[in-house]
Order: sequence, then C-alpha cells, then structure tokens
Amino acid sequence: MHSHPLRQSKKQRKTMADNNPIRFGIMGCAEIARKVSRAIHLAPDSILYAIASRSIQKAKQFAVKNGLSETVKVYGSYDELLDDPCVDAVYMPLPTSLHVQWAVMAAEKKKHLMLEKPTALDVGQLDRILEACSVNGVQFMDASMWYHHPRTAKIKELLSDSKTFGQIRVIHSSSSFLGTPEFLEKRVKPDLNALGALGDAGWYCIGAIMWAKNYQLPTTVTALPAIARNTTGVILSCNASLHWDKEQTTATFYCSFLSNESMDLAISGSNGSLNLEDFIIPFTETSASFEFTSGAKFLDLHIGWNVKSKRVQVTSELPQEAMMVQDFVELVKGIKHSGCKPDGKWPEISRVTQLVMDAVNNSIDLGFKPVTM
Amino acid sequence: MHSHPLRQSKKQRKTMADNNPIRFGIMGCAEIARKVSRAIHLAPDSILYAIASRSIQKAKQFAVKNGLSETVKVYGSYDELLDDPCVDAVYMPLPTSLHVQWAVMAAEKKKHLMLEKPTALDVGQLDRILEACSVNGVQFMDASMWYHHPRTAKIKELLSDSKTFGQIRVIHSSSSFLGTPEFLEKRVKPDLNALGALGDAGWYCIGAIMWAKNYQLPTTVTALPAIARNTTGVILSCNASLHWDKEQTTATFYCSFLSNESMDLAISGSNGSLNLEDFIIPFTETSASFEFTSGAKFLDLHIGWNVKSKRVQVTSELPQEAMMVQDFVELVKGIKHSGCKPDGKWPEISRVTQLVMDAVNNSIDLGFKPVTM
Repeated sequence: MHSHPLRQSKKQRKTMADNNPIRFGIMGCAEIARKVSRAIHLAPDSILYAIASRSIQKAKQFAVKNGLSETVKVYGSYDELLDDPCVDAVYMPLPTSLHVQWAVMAAEKKKHLMLEKPTALDVGQLDRILEACSVNGVQFMDASMWYHHPRTAKIKELLSDSKTFGQIRVIHSSSSFLGTPEFLEKRVKPDLNALGALGDAGWYCIGAIMWAKNYQLPTTVTALPAIARNTTGVILSCNASLHWDKEQTTATFYCSFLSNESMDLAISGSNGSLNLEDFIIPFTETSASFEFTSGAKFLDLHIGWNVKSKRVQVTSELPQEAMMVQDFVELVKGIKHSGCKPDGKWPEISRVTQLVMDAVNNSIDLGFKPVTM
Repeated sequence: MHSHPLRQSKKQRKTMADNNPIRFGIMGCAEIARKVSRAIHLAPDSILYAIASRSIQKAKQFAVKNGLSETVKVYGSYDELLDDPCVDAVYMPLPTSLHVQWAVMAAEKKKHLMLEKPTALDVGQLDRILEACSVNGVQFMDASMWYHHPRTAKIKELLSDSKTFGQIRVIHSSSSFLGTPEFLEKRVKPDLNALGALGDAGWYCIGAIMWAKNYQLPTTVTALPAIARNTTGVILSCNASLHWDKEQTTATFYCSFLSNESMDLAISGSNGSLNLEDFIIPFTETSASFEFTSGAKFLDLHIGWNVKSKRVQVTSELPQEAMMVQDFVELVKGIKHSGCKPDGKWPEISRVTQLVMDAVNNSIDLGFKPVTM
C-alpha cells in the first residue's frame, strides 16, 4: 500500500487557512481523481469538500485509500453532490460518454466545472456543455494540466520571439504509453471511452499543436493511413497531420496505447528549434526542462554545428496540477466574490482541440482523406 | 580565410604510410568535396590522388583553397580523371541530374564509386548506375556519412534488443536548414537539383527510417498536403508518412530548406524510446550522444516518471566521414587485392531510399494520395 500524499503534506500546506476557500466536489472516483484531489489540497484557496461515486461503498473506499480528511463528505450518487449548495466547483473525471449529461447538469446547478479530457465525444456535445456553462455563468476548464506549468509559459515566450525562433514551420508531438492486455481489451470500452487513444493521448498532442499555433485552426486535418483498434473497434493508436496553408506550417502527431511512455513535443521555426520529452507530465515535480537551439548553422566544412542545444530548466513551487487548480480557483473566486464574468479563454482552448479531434475522426472515416476546417 | 584542415593534420595522420593506399579522384569541386577530401586524407589506406572540374581554373582554385598537396593531380575535365589508370575510386559530388551519365561512365572505366546523395533523379536512373557497377565489378556506396558513425551502430544495437526496446511503433525524423534567398532561388535549380529539399535533406530522413526498419519497404508512402516550392517549382519543404501495415509501424518526416537547422530522429517502441537531435552531423566530431528510456511508467498518482531519459555518449576516433571512407576503402581493397566481390549491402540501402523517395514524389503528383509499394 502506498503512503498517503494528502495526509503527509496536509499540515505543511494549509496552515494559513484560507478564509473563504473554493469548495470542490469530485464526481467519479477514477484513478486520476487521486491526483487531482491531492492538487486541490495543495493549491491555495481550495478545499476538497465532497466526493461522489455511483455507490457509497466505492466513494468510501476512495476516501480511505487516499487518506482524505473525515470532514470530506462522501456521496453515493452524483445528484446528491450536485444538490449540495456548499459545493462551488466540480471536478468531473467520468467516462467521456457521460460528460454531456452530467456536465450540463452541473452547470445548471451553478457548479463551476473542471472537466476531464477528452471533453466530449464530439464538438456538438461540447457545445451543449459550454452553452450550459455560459447560460449559468459558471467557469469551464478542461483538466489538461501541462498548460499551467511555468515551463509551458517559458516555451511560449521563446516561440513568440520572432528573432530567436522565427516562424513556426513544423511541430511534432507524441503521446503514448503501453497498455496492458487487460487495459486494451477491457478498460477501453466503446460505450464509455469511444475516442480511445485519440481522445486520451491524442488530446494532449492536438492541444500542444494548437497551443503552439495560438489556437488558429488549421487549413486541413488528415489522418495517416495507420490505425490500430481493439476487438471492439476502439482506437488504440493513430497518427494525423495538420496543415496551415498560408503560413506553411505542418504538424504531425502520434497517439497510442501500444508504445513505451512518450510525451514528445518538437517545434522547428525558421530561426530556432526546441524539444522536450515530457511535456504532459514532467519527469519530476519540482523542475522541468526543454532543449533549444537558435541560429544553428554548420561549422566550416560541415563538420559540426556552431551551437549545441541549450537546456532551459524551469523550477516550480507547486505541481502543475495544483497550479491548474490554482488558476481555476482564481477565476472562480473572481466570479463568486467580485462579480467577474467567466473567462472565455479556457472554453475556447477545449473547443478548438475538440474540433480538430473531430476532424481527425472524420478523416479516418473518410479513408484518410484531408478534411478542410 | 579559413585555416587548412588538410595541411594541419597531415603530418600526424599518414605517418605510417600505407604501402598500397586506395587512390581517390574527386569529380566536381562542390563545397561538400572539401569535407570529403579531408576525410580521404584522415582515413587509413586512402589518398587523394586527383581532382577534376569542368574548368582547370576551378580545380586549381579548389586545390589551393583547401591546401591540397602539390602531388594531387588537377584535371580540367571529368574524362581526363576517368582515363587516369591510377585512379582506383571516384567520389562524385556532381548535381543530381548529372549522376547517371558520369556514374555509369566511371563504372565502365572500372572506378569504384562513392556517389553523393540523392543518388539519382529516380530509381530507374539509379538502377542503370547500379547495373553498370555490377557488370564492371566495382563497389558502389552513396556518401551518407552518418551510417558509419559508431553512435549509429550503438543505436541499432538498442533497437534490436527486443527486451529493452521492443517493436518499433513510430519513427519521426526531420532534416532542415535555413537557406538564404540566393540559395533558395538560384542554387536550387530544376535542371540540376530537381529533387530539391526532398532529395537533399529528405534523403537522410528516409534513410534513417529505412535503416531503423532494416530496409524493409513500407506498405504505403503518403506525402502530406504541405509543400513549398520556389518559383521554378523545386521543392523547398515537404513532409511524408510511411506505414508498415503488418507491424503497425508509422514513420513521418519533414525535410526543408526553410527551417532552423534540425537533424532529429525519434523512435518509439513498445518498450523503449530514443531520440537525438543531430543524427546526420553530430554537434561535435569526437563525441556524440542520444537519449533513451526503457520501461517508462508513471509513478503512483501519475506525478512523474519511474525513469529519466538516459544519455548515451559515444566517442569516435575519426570523424564519421573518414569512417565512411574507411569502410569504403576496406571493400575496395578486398576487391582489388583479394578478389572479393563488391558488397551488395550499400547499393541496396541506396536503392530502397531512392524507391521511397520516388514514392513520395509520386504521392505529391497524385495529390497526396497513398502510394502502395
């Protein structure tokens, strides 16, 4: 049995108790909820207030296994959690096919919404969720953690420097891990996780590419004629390319449950190149790095380079998922206490990611033909 | 003016003078010939015997600029060099469109042939060259240097280890540099270098992918709908994907004259991943590295990895181009002195590379449709 990270760090952290923390409810006791419950604990001004599962036993087990405080409420149904007026915000790691139903309901109950990715089965479903959030004035954010790491901001700074980096020419990303046979055949279910590796691992690749391109939609999206599915038809591995006609930028990505863990992001511009191998989850929590070169040229005789790739190290006080919670909580506090409007940036990020994912799926269905956006 | 690397290192190297060195003639005074003349000088059992250009002035300039010994013969025509019976082997850095004519003639004059890449405009031309080499019993090798670096062998060892690396799932390669406007519009000519960035930079990417796959032809080759050409129609930048149906391997590559210098190779297998950023020309001559992980898994809570990527350093006594010359010379010596047959491995490597390059070109011509191999 593992030690309880929540219990361990509890005292050190929330000593300067926040007067008015944002109270989270977690809907669904998936494995990833363990990580996010810790993040809620570590982030300032946030508190885990309640958890819910479809069965009270499962919820209780989760509480015990993760050393949650006994003050955390435990519900045996999602409805009960949503009906609790003390819950400010919901983190929802439910299977994808259940998102639209429960996310819309959460918004209608005025709960701010942190939704696991992929956000929905398609952009039509996501639009219903975003519309419900908009109408009810609640903040939406998908739970992609890496956007919130300071390394991500540092890379963006570099990408935006036209002298150091220039125009982005090509982006390549991969996200993979090696699923066990049991995972591949039983955990990835067409009725629950119909988007398979594209929805899970591919979400990050598409997000990274769109992030690099400042969320400007590509001209075309083309799935590559290379796809693996399990016996129920769910995608276990696929590849796609995105193309921006005017800027002559091309991106390719690979997402898979059939490969050694990889989280690569490589971007080349007219003047610079950068790459990192752990963009989704840094190798370690306290420090992360990336490598870049700028103005690379051959030495005379082409026997070497005028530069070696430079490693840029970025430290972080909080784990990136706690920074995600922190960013979300700041927005929720603004709405709750200061009458701010929900921030439209995060819904837009999710929406373009989902749109491109839909295009990849369409391209696959069309026999790997380019889909014009 | 640069110092003369040939003159500098001359004394240290060939002191234990070889009794019977292989005598090279260089046909064409291209920039790359400077690097190879140094390599011929550094490699054991090889000597630069003659150089030829279409004009005697250009050949003389090359000799002076590169500090060649005054004993090196200087010819003002390619025919004269090929008619010199003392020339054992020819290194030919001519423009691609001239390869078939002069390479066939060199073979007919019984000269062993080290041919710059791309080897020909298409596999039909290359087959004429290879046929001439075969009929005349001369060794053929294209001048891709990186195959000969000990790092390459070390990576291959890792890739071949089914426990450490497993099955290859995905390969991504890029080869690019930023051409000057003058280079892009004037140096890349449709009549001389019709294959543009695909032939020049793409040759390495295709070669690396095919090398990783042990030269097994892919099921399909598909150019991506992203291509840049100069005003004369020559490719300045393109992307393609290769797919092996049975093994479910996918490869993508990017080759370009429009991007910061990059030479990336990333390979992911079921159990391992590796990457390097300088696979074509190592950052430095004496030592080169690559990074790899094997058996990578998330830590509990998915807050990090169980491994960090490991850097493997490989030192080399000779620059890789000198090792290329050395490998070539060994084969030529075997043929010349011991009655060995030419080694069929190197022609085969060039041929599959050219075949895949042809398929990329076909796919482009077909509007980016998959081409079945």
